[in-house]
Amino acid sequence: MTRAFNFSAGPAALPEPVLRQVQEELLEWRGERASVMEVSHRGKAFVACAAEAERDLRELAGVPDDYAVLFLQGGATLLAALLPMNLAGPEAGADYVLTGHWGEKALDNARVSLRARVAASAKADGYDHVPDPAGWDLDPDAAYVHITSNETIHGVEFRQVPDTGDVPLVVDASSNLLSEPLDVRRFGVIYGGAQKNLGPSGLAVAIVRRDLLGRHGRLLPPIFELLNQVKNDSMFNTPPTFAWYVLGLVLKWMKAEGGLAALGERNRRKAERLYAVIDGSGGFYRNPVRPEARSRMNVPFTLPDPALDPVFLKEAEAASLVGLKGHRAVGGMRASIYNAMPEAGVAALADFMADFARRHG
Amino acid sequence: MTRAFNFSAGPAALPEPVLRQVQEELLEWRGERASVMEVSHRGKAFVACAAEAERDLRELAGVPDDYAVLFLQGGATLLAALLPMNLAGPEAGADYVLTGHWGEKALDNARVSLRARVAASAKADGYDHVPDPAGWDLDPDAAYVHITSNETIHGVEFRQVPDTGDVPLVVDASSNLLSEPLDVRRFGVIYGGAQKNLGPSGLAVAIVRRDLLGRHGRLLPPIFELLNQVKNDSMFNTPPTFAWYVLGLVLKWMKAEGGLAALGERNRRKAERLYAVIDGSGGFYRNPVRPEARSRMNVPFTLPDPALDPVFLKEAEAASLVGLKGHRAVGGMRASIYNAMPEAGVAALADFMADFARRHG
Repeated sequence: MTRAFNFSAGPAALPEPVLRQVQEELLEWRGERASVMEVSHRGKAFVACAAEAERDLRELAGVPDDYAVLFLQGGATLLAALLPMNLAGPEAGADYVLTGHWGEKALDNARVSLRARVAASAKADGYDHVPDPAGWDLDPDAAYVHITSNETIHGVEFRQVPDTGDVPLVVDASSNLLSEPLDVRRFGVIYGGAQKNLGPSGLAVAIVRRDLLGRHGRLLPPIFELLNQVKNDSMFNTPPTFAWYVLGLVLKWMKAEGGLAALGERNRRKAERLYAVIDGSGGFYRNPVRPEARSRMNVPFTLPDPALDPVFLKEAEAASLVGLKGHRAVGGMRASIYNAMPEAGVAALADFMADFARRHG
Repeated sequence: MTRAFNFSAGPAALPEPVLRQVQEELLEWRGERASVMEVSHRGKAFVACAAEAERDLRELAGVPDDYAVLFLQGGATLLAALLPMNLAGPEAGADYVLTGHWGEKALDNARVSLRARVAASAKADGYDHVPDPAGWDLDPDAAYVHITSNETIHGVEFRQVPDTGDVPLVVDASSNLLSEPLDVRRFGVIYGGAQKNLGPSGLAVAIVRRDLLGRHGRLLPPIFELLNQVKNDSMFNTPPTFAWYVLGLVLKWMKAEGGLAALGERNRRKAERLYAVIDGSGGFYRNPVRPEARSRMNVPFTLPDPALDPVFLKEAEAASLVGLKGHRAVGGMRASIYNAMPEAGVAALADFMADFARRHG
């Protein structure tokens, strides 16, 4: 057997050098005479490993000191429920901009906790674009504005950070976090699951402007209070140590690859290559998203006849291209091309797609 | 380097054959041409792996069909907050029996959600025993009674399941889950973090009588609603796939070792051996817990003089015995001897302790 190019939407491909290091030191880690999975999260070795990951993330993303960086369990979905109760009281308003499935879910998880409302939505158009911010129905008194910077299922990505004035912008960046340079100061909260660009599933990252926490005036169970995680370096309870460790290795790999600028360029090239095949296929492949909002991370596309889908998947697997089946909500195919997907993988997929279209078109 | 005997309280030692298998198949798992960390949780291979783990857990513990088995993120602490809101409405009462630190924490995380009260507590005695159930101040109308079956810090374990009549018994079994046979029918909910007896951190297990869920009458964020996890086989959101996979391997190892009866016998022998050294040390080592409530999993003990603590730890490490430093709340030492700690490790520690006492007594 050999490893395939894995286009899974998440959990997703990890950098092979990271996996090799994990394999190498799986039974004995850093002189601990134990696996990293077996050592106390409060021991010197793991505390140092955890702090390194935070330092590397701060360096890669340019996170200012007045932002906390949290490593948490529960995924982006749990944070979608916890953030509303941590950012404001029950009478506060919050504006949600919907550009796909995950924005809807975030709204569902916020409704109970405050007056969440839809400020803009592309649902009526099948989530094929990002609504023009000039037309958003924003409440200037809202506690925050929530967006999903990349919709993993619909393949819709914000290519510009909207200006929400003094109202903090809260972004679920699960599927494009650290895939290109960003200006953290434009955001109140950036959060996301690790399992796309950053590591295995079971770990979420949150970058939170410190002054936004602890002002909600609610009685919360202590484990819901994000300020407790800030005060305890994300160890208010036992953290997912292995996932945190792997994320730390991925961050070091990202630095070695040249950081977010280099990764961003590479990710742009990868996406352009696939969209060029789609747009150059004479309508054989179709991607419904308006060009200016097409995701650099998740490229959904359909074939001319759904009966061809299983043929495409089978031939792709034979060509060592796996994880291409689209989400059931939109059908067709989806190529997820996060940081760890090499350009060679995208090139192989592009060549395969062009060849498949020639043979079946 | 060689691996040491690791007495860490959690994350804790894993069976070495499990670690070797993880290492072996880390880059290519089950013909997927990808790491288990990289495959979709909704793909056939991982769904099969997840279902196998549930089947093995049900077989090992004898879980009846009218109980759901959940694999969740957030640890026992998150469940300590979510269970109260899932089991009853805000006007309901719930009785908490406190035998140590974790019972207090569970109560703290319940108070906001319902009328949680202390039905019995050993706090005034420094948590050195389990209060006699005959003296518990139980409310017959309570939604549930909550106990912590093993207190990891104080080393206090329930050796009998208390009879709470028609009121469901909810037990945080984080540190003795599946360490001996149990009668699931005696419980309404059994929950706990995996990182002691069952796997890496970042995964919690809950065994829940199905009829107890969905009757609370609250509006909850969907991700707080445990019934959503039941309906979606613990994949209402992306699960911690790697931790789930490792837990599955640990369960198979447990079956190969003879199941809970054999492990329970072995665990009993291991604990007896350490307590025999402590009690036979002429007062050199002391364990403050009353004999009938001494934990089989966590054996805390003190030396005659705290100045000896660093000497003990240093010599123990030189003898390949690691992770013995006690929790700061009680001081001294703690030997955590979960399922994966072999009898040879306990024998080595017992011999070291006896020798150390001879040399320093």
